[in-house]
Amino acid sequence: METHRPRGRGVTIEDVARAAGVSRQTVSNALNAPYRLKAETLERVTTLIEELGYRPDQSARSLRSGTRRIIAYPTPEDDPANPNPLMGGFLEAVVAAAGEAGYHILLVRPHSGQDQTRALEELIAARTVDGFLLSDVLHDDARVTYLAGRGFPFVAFGRTASEHPQNWVDVDTVQAMIDMVDLLAAAGHRRIAFLASSSRLPWMDHRRDGFQAGMRRHGLHGQEISAPGDDPGEIVAATRRLLGERVRPTAVIAAGDWLALGVYAAARAEGLDIGTDLAVAGFNDLPVTAFLQPALTTVRLPLRRIAGALVDRLLQTIEDGVTPQAGLLLAGELVVRPSSGG
Amino acid sequence: METHRPRGRGVTIEDVARAAGVSRQTVSNALNAPYRLKAETLERVTTLIEELGYRPDQSARSLRSGTRRIIAYPTPEDDPANPNPLMGGFLEAVVAAAGEAGYHILLVRPHSGQDQTRALEELIAARTVDGFLLSDVLHDDARVTYLAGRGFPFVAFGRTASEHPQNWVDVDTVQAMIDMVDLLAAAGHRRIAFLASSSRLPWMDHRRDGFQAGMRRHGLHGQEISAPGDDPGEIVAATRRLLGERVRPTAVIAAGDWLALGVYAAARAEGLDIGTDLAVAGFNDLPVTAFLQPALTTVRLPLRRIAGALVDRLLQTIEDGVTPQAGLLLAGELVVRPSSGG
Repeated sequence: METHRPRGRGVTIEDVARAAGVSRQTVSNALNAPYRLKAETLERVTTLIEELGYRPDQSARSLRSGTRRIIAYPTPEDDPANPNPLMGGFLEAVVAAAGEAGYHILLVRPHSGQDQTRALEELIAARTVDGFLLSDVLHDDARVTYLAGRGFPFVAFGRTASEHPQNWVDVDTVQAMIDMVDLLAAAGHRRIAFLASSSRLPWMDHRRDGFQAGMRRHGLHGQEISAPGDDPGEIVAATRRLLGERVRPTAVIAAGDWLALGVYAAARAEGLDIGTDLAVAGFNDLPVTAFLQPALTTVRLPLRRIAGALVDRLLQTIEDGVTPQAGLLLAGELVVRPSSGG
Repeated sequence: METHRPRGRGVTIEDVARAAGVSRQTVSNALNAPYRLKAETLERVTTLIEELGYRPDQSARSLRSGTRRIIAYPTPEDDPANPNPLMGGFLEAVVAAAGEAGYHILLVRPHSGQDQTRALEELIAARTVDGFLLSDVLHDDARVTYLAGRGFPFVAFGRTASEHPQNWVDVDTVQAMIDMVDLLAAAGHRRIAFLASSSRLPWMDHRRDGFQAGMRRHGLHGQEISAPGDDPGEIVAATRRLLGERVRPTAVIAAGDWLALGVYAAARAEGLDIGTDLAVAGFNDLPVTAFLQPALTTVRLPLRRIAGALVDRLLQTIEDGVTPQAGLLLAGELVVRPSSGG
């Protein structure tokens, strides 16, 4: 039996709304913000959109609503031959979350000599984007100051300073590091060292703070060393000096999995068995850690939840004009594997 | 002494052109396509742009020229917890190359149920983007067929079928694999196995073809095995079966570094020393290979050159209406490290 409903080009959003017994806004949400609808509503509306052959005019809708359906993400400069190993997964999660809401992600890089703020200003002036997603947010971040000052929608992965809008999402790094120290202390470790990178970036400070907080809880003194840079050779050399000391640590918490790879190489060079002679832990759960022998104990970032929360908060600001008033801390997940020993 | 030149808001592109003794187009190029100018010209024009305080009206210029200065890149769907390890470096190289030319990269992901072609169609209809950069191009790629049919600017990382415009850039994978076989054959290896993933993607086929071509040159029979998937456990199990055979290969070329990590784990489990008992080689030169013990012989992709050529070709099409008539093959670089032995 054929349904005598209108089909194709002439079908309007009202036709779909009437057939589904929902409001125009609900049909719009099914297309643009499906996460706002109950699964059964979404399915009914989506089925009718397909049955009726409704095709929204994206261009006209954007003009009407004043949105481009584009979120700008100013990407930190990096080295293609040795990129931040978290970036691929983070971007994938952000693109997927934005795509579900009908938005695309614009990767923004100032050209030579142009400062970050100027690049944001140009995008706003040209009405190219609806809002900004910032990452690698510094305590005193010029981009946050600029966007907050203009009242332009943004959300930050990483805490913003208290005088700025608290529209951010971050990982509860301090708690994750406390959990990691608890794990090692419970296994009997007393001489636990922390291997940091030399940077004073906020997230590196949080990992260091969490390590020291965890050590204090157990009445332990935490030794810290810093790798001078990202160079594998330098990381290995710094760690070998630590492991070669007369009274060496029995456990090393590396501030990142990348650094933990250096600890593996240094331990092998010093003839120490990881998991038995030396417990090792990292941070980030990079995919490569599954191939390490033994596999690495680490902290997994909930990338899909982080990206979902970032996009959701930003779209609340863009579409509803509602800016969240408090940051959102998401728990990292301790992933216990053989490198941390019994 | 003060220069009595106009400054700030009132300054036009003609003022800059006159002061620099160049054409309007040259000033425009300095801002939008600096790579087209000689270094000295670029410096003279840039200095005057700053001295005079000229600020191009990006919005107005985009409307005039009809360009948005946005390149769309439809990103392949991926797993945030285990993303394609090349993607971060590739994206970084593309964003940097586009940024230098004053373009941003729009990451495009069709929302649920929407097909790729429809997503491209919407972006074109909404005049959101100036052209497309495609990667992971299949032999019979619907996106290429669609864009070629519409005559809309695009460039592909990966070869397009012969009936389509040959506006692509690719790595000469076949030659790189022949070079790799030459290296191992010169070291005396006769039983060389190839570890592929199970996929029949074009680039995996090229690696396989190159391996077999290299083996034929030396009158050798190339054994191939396939890992059933990307799961580390399955890769290791498949490789252990190969290494456990009565007459085992003395060298394994893995079609990717990711697979080579599995060969390392399998060799350790079988009690074989890599570099002495078993030569191992990979493909892609992922950053992690520098931490492996021994370090991995592999093929490095020239990511910056690839990205630069892609952006340059696409902008020729967008800005000058000139579509390159032949693909560009770039050489991969053999990186010889201890894993392949003497």
